[in-house]
Amino acid sequence: MAVDNRKADATLESLHRIFTVPEAPESTLGLIEQKISQNLNEFLGTHIAAREKPLIEIEKDFSSADIPENPSFVSDHTQFLLTKLVAQSVHTSAPSFIGHMTSALPYFLMPLSKIMIGLNQNLVKIETSKAFTPLERQVLGMMHNLIFNEETSFYQQWMHSANHSLGAFCSGGTIANITALWVARNNVLKPDGEFKGVANEGLFRAMKHYGYDDLAILVSERGHYSLKKAADVLGIGRDCLIPIKTDDNNRIRVDDLTATLQSLKENNIKPFAIIGVAGTTETGNIDPLDELADIAQAHDCHFHVDAAWGGATLMSNKYRSLLKGIERADSITIDAHKQLYVPMGAGMVIFKNPALMTSIEHHAEYILRKGSKDLGSHTLEGSRSGMAMLLFASLNIISRQGYEMLINNSIDKAKHFANMIKQEPDFELITEPELCLLTYRYVPAETQQALTIANAEDKHLLHDALNDLTKFIQKRQRESGKSFVSRTRLTPEKWDHKITTVFRVVLANPLTTDNILQDVLIEQKELAKESVHSLPRLLTLTKRILANN
Amino acid sequence: MAVDNRKADATLESLHRIFTVPEAPESTLGLIEQKISQNLNEFLGTHIAAREKPLIEIEKDFSSADIPENPSFVSDHTQFLLTKLVAQSVHTSAPSFIGHMTSALPYFLMPLSKIMIGLNQNLVKIETSKAFTPLERQVLGMMHNLIFNEETSFYQQWMHSANHSLGAFCSGGTIANITALWVARNNVLKPDGEFKGVANEGLFRAMKHYGYDDLAILVSERGHYSLKKAADVLGIGRDCLIPIKTDDNNRIRVDDLTATLQSLKENNIKPFAIIGVAGTTETGNIDPLDELADIAQAHDCHFHVDAAWGGATLMSNKYRSLLKGIERADSITIDAHKQLYVPMGAGMVIFKNPALMTSIEHHAEYILRKGSKDLGSHTLEGSRSGMAMLLFASLNIISRQGYEMLINNSIDKAKHFANMIKQEPDFELITEPELCLLTYRYVPAETQQALTIANAEDKHLLHDALNDLTKFIQKRQRESGKSFVSRTRLTPEKWDHKITTVFRVVLANPLTTDNILQDVLIEQKELAKESVHSLPRLLTLTKRILANN
Repeated sequence: MAVDNRKADATLESLHRIFTVPEAPESTLGLIEQKISQNLNEFLGTHIAAREKPLIEIEKDFSSADIPENPSFVSDHTQFLLTKLVAQSVHTSAPSFIGHMTSALPYFLMPLSKIMIGLNQNLVKIETSKAFTPLERQVLGMMHNLIFNEETSFYQQWMHSANHSLGAFCSGGTIANITALWVARNNVLKPDGEFKGVANEGLFRAMKHYGYDDLAILVSERGHYSLKKAADVLGIGRDCLIPIKTDDNNRIRVDDLTATLQSLKENNIKPFAIIGVAGTTETGNIDPLDELADIAQAHDCHFHVDAAWGGATLMSNKYRSLLKGIERADSITIDAHKQLYVPMGAGMVIFKNPALMTSIEHHAEYILRKGSKDLGSHTLEGSRSGMAMLLFASLNIISRQGYEMLINNSIDKAKHFANMIKQEPDFELITEPELCLLTYRYVPAETQQALTIANAEDKHLLHDALNDLTKFIQKRQRESGKSFVSRTRLTPEKWDHKITTVFRVVLANPLTTDNILQDVLIEQKELAKESVHSLPRLLTLTKRILANN
Repeated sequence: MAVDNRKADATLESLHRIFTVPEAPESTLGLIEQKISQNLNEFLGTHIAAREKPLIEIEKDFSSADIPENPSFVSDHTQFLLTKLVAQSVHTSAPSFIGHMTSALPYFLMPLSKIMIGLNQNLVKIETSKAFTPLERQVLGMMHNLIFNEETSFYQQWMHSANHSLGAFCSGGTIANITALWVARNNVLKPDGEFKGVANEGLFRAMKHYGYDDLAILVSERGHYSLKKAADVLGIGRDCLIPIKTDDNNRIRVDDLTATLQSLKENNIKPFAIIGVAGTTETGNIDPLDELADIAQAHDCHFHVDAAWGGATLMSNKYRSLLKGIERADSITIDAHKQLYVPMGAGMVIFKNPALMTSIEHHAEYILRKGSKDLGSHTLEGSRSGMAMLLFASLNIISRQGYEMLINNSIDKAKHFANMIKQEPDFELITEPELCLLTYRYVPAETQQALTIANAEDKHLLHDALNDLTKFIQKRQRESGKSFVSRTRLTPEKWDHKITTVFRVVLANPLTTDNILQDVLIEQKELAKESVHSLPRLLTLTKRILANN
């Protein structure tokens, strides 16, 4: 590759050059830019090494804490990044990498990202973002409309209102969930007479004022781990996030929820938020949102829906009824960097009622003055980039119909893959796909037979061996670099709620074909044979059980 | 401009194309990419309209909450973005825009950003980031080294340790400040005997266990507004962020701090964190950090330094002594998107003690397993992008010496500008630059004379008129689009702590020249004349006062 002989050497002039003179088209960086523009997937395929190095090896290249005293040539450093960083990164957009919630990106987002970064706007205030502020407010309005479908006049009245907010753009679902629960907490412990509210006086005084012994947030045991983090940050306490049991389909058990609410109240504990999960991270199932809305209403709780992953399904007229009841939520989390196909760092929280966020509003002397339309007065974060532009462009270029096709295609592909797995004698489907997510594992046909007749103790031994084998296959497949599925641990009813390690697959990448899916299964069968411990142990066990019957 | 006739129309194949086929070099987007690569400043200069439209006009282009049902051509939408969004954005990198903390960016960050976005890593876990994880840990180590300068063996031991963390990369200073105070809160209310700690049991139980009547965080009245937000989010309450008076140089008054600590303790209120400001947002001054460290130690408080803006000064051997004492802090906030010249969205919090963040550690079933090196177990955010790569590249390509030149040049330029202002008979310097930030205002020479002899009532009237005039000039200058200074309100001792509206200037852009600074002053004098209310009122007042004496 050609080089770029610039570096920031001993003069200010040479430093100025790195702020003004662009890279030459034939420089190392210039050539990379061209390659990325011409074919991102080819660039990634060429530069990301197939077989991965152990982490401990990679760390050696990133081991010095010294800030270099002297400048590097741009070309030399670029070469370092290519061989040491890019080569050992993860090809998240590969169609055979079906274990992540991130996927391939539409090509037009690359050049648009460059515009966004070049403009370097700061969305905290109008002074540093101007038109990006109404753009972001419009995007929030569009997402509000997708969920709640209010009249045009509603959006005319509230979308650009200085003292209201339909939600907040943020770096991701965790900040979105924290924001939603922050609003809920501040509303349940709001100002009251002499008491100036939890926002001003803090949680200790608030609890004393309202006379509760504790607060509680309720969510199914499949709730995302960020909710525990939210309960910690907000001073509510991780133990006060009450996990509710789920049914065979990983959906919250409404009877259990109602009973828990009752018992909390009897103990003078105030349940102030109920969270519905619309697309569990591990199994992709959706809670019965309509029933949860009823319960939240009856118990005067804030109703939040964590649709970080599943929210995009609302784009599909065919499947949006799966989320029926979401339109009754007080707040909803949606990540655009998941199934809305924009780059990492685009989360949102949307509020049904434009006045709800008032409980977290804040102002300062030099920005966010009262009555200004600065977005920063209603966000947990301060300075933020113009990511909303990328979602805006995708909504326009892909459109609702385009997103519907992507969503439907994903779900249909997952159903198809589920059927493929069921037809394979050596695989077991663990959870059926409700959205485009399913779990399964490799279980040799004879072991499946053994499981049907084994006694409790033998069953336990078989599951243990299977768990080890699943873990082995998943790690080996990841390391070999051709394809990737993730893994998690579930407690399926079918197997007496024993801990069961499973492959987890998310079929969001539109470029994943049936052939790729077939190859993933073939590779897994082959990799199983490489196991020198788990598979022999499993097969010996299997033989003994079958022989004894 | 040439067009790109692709859109995501009625077939899945056409949708696939937007995920695979790149833009043609002669398409609208292809041409934009070339222009940005060739000369970003020229692109921005051409496409950002000089004169700005009123916000209410801009909002008309972003008024519909409908998600388009049908796809747009990429070229058409790009054209829309250029004329409606880019044209009405803020030219934050223009050398004459000296009111922002964001500045021009080194050219190599554009193509590197594209690589970062194309790779679309998720730093929450190794599985979706691989080499980016050790890279980010190294960057945190480098910043730790910059502040604390520990031995090489320290970094060998802790930088890549699974159960420790030298800090967290995050979207910006607000999240960094919240993270620091979250850690401090969880440590002061840590597990103790039967009590499982505030993280698990919540603030109410924690306060009852420890027997405090309230908590308090202390910071000077010039502390950043994000600290109030942090106090609210963390359940401590905005009122429990105690503002301490500042001296004539906007530095915290240590005597006042000590007296406040005493009085809090007498009231059974637990002060658990003292915050030093290293670069106030409004005046750029630095608290006496060494003295604060002594006090924090004596009172057993967590000592946090908010160096979001000023932290980069540590790169300068000439000026780093201004931050003397920062190496005794427990935690420090630094924004790389300010004076470290990387794009928006790169904040950091650094902890002196690698074990401190244990108090906020969290794990989940499928990621962040105990013993893993996943970064997500010690961050407030969940999914995050690979921004650390951009800081890493800048640290290598610019190097410590290069950053020193940029920092020194900025501070020297601010001192030079301060001298220019002092020599101008019609301007008044309000705050001297300690770093590259200063404040001043336009005060006609004869008004300056009148101020020296006016009685209290007349002084008040003069200041009122001057405040209106400053506001008028600042708004008019911004709207005319040639240059930009920001404004804030101070209470200078010189003017009996009267509220004084001032121009605020940040000279971080290396491309800002003396001529540009001269032109800013000339333009302000000209714009003052356009004021049909404030200036005549001021001059009439001035004449009366001078005539009466």
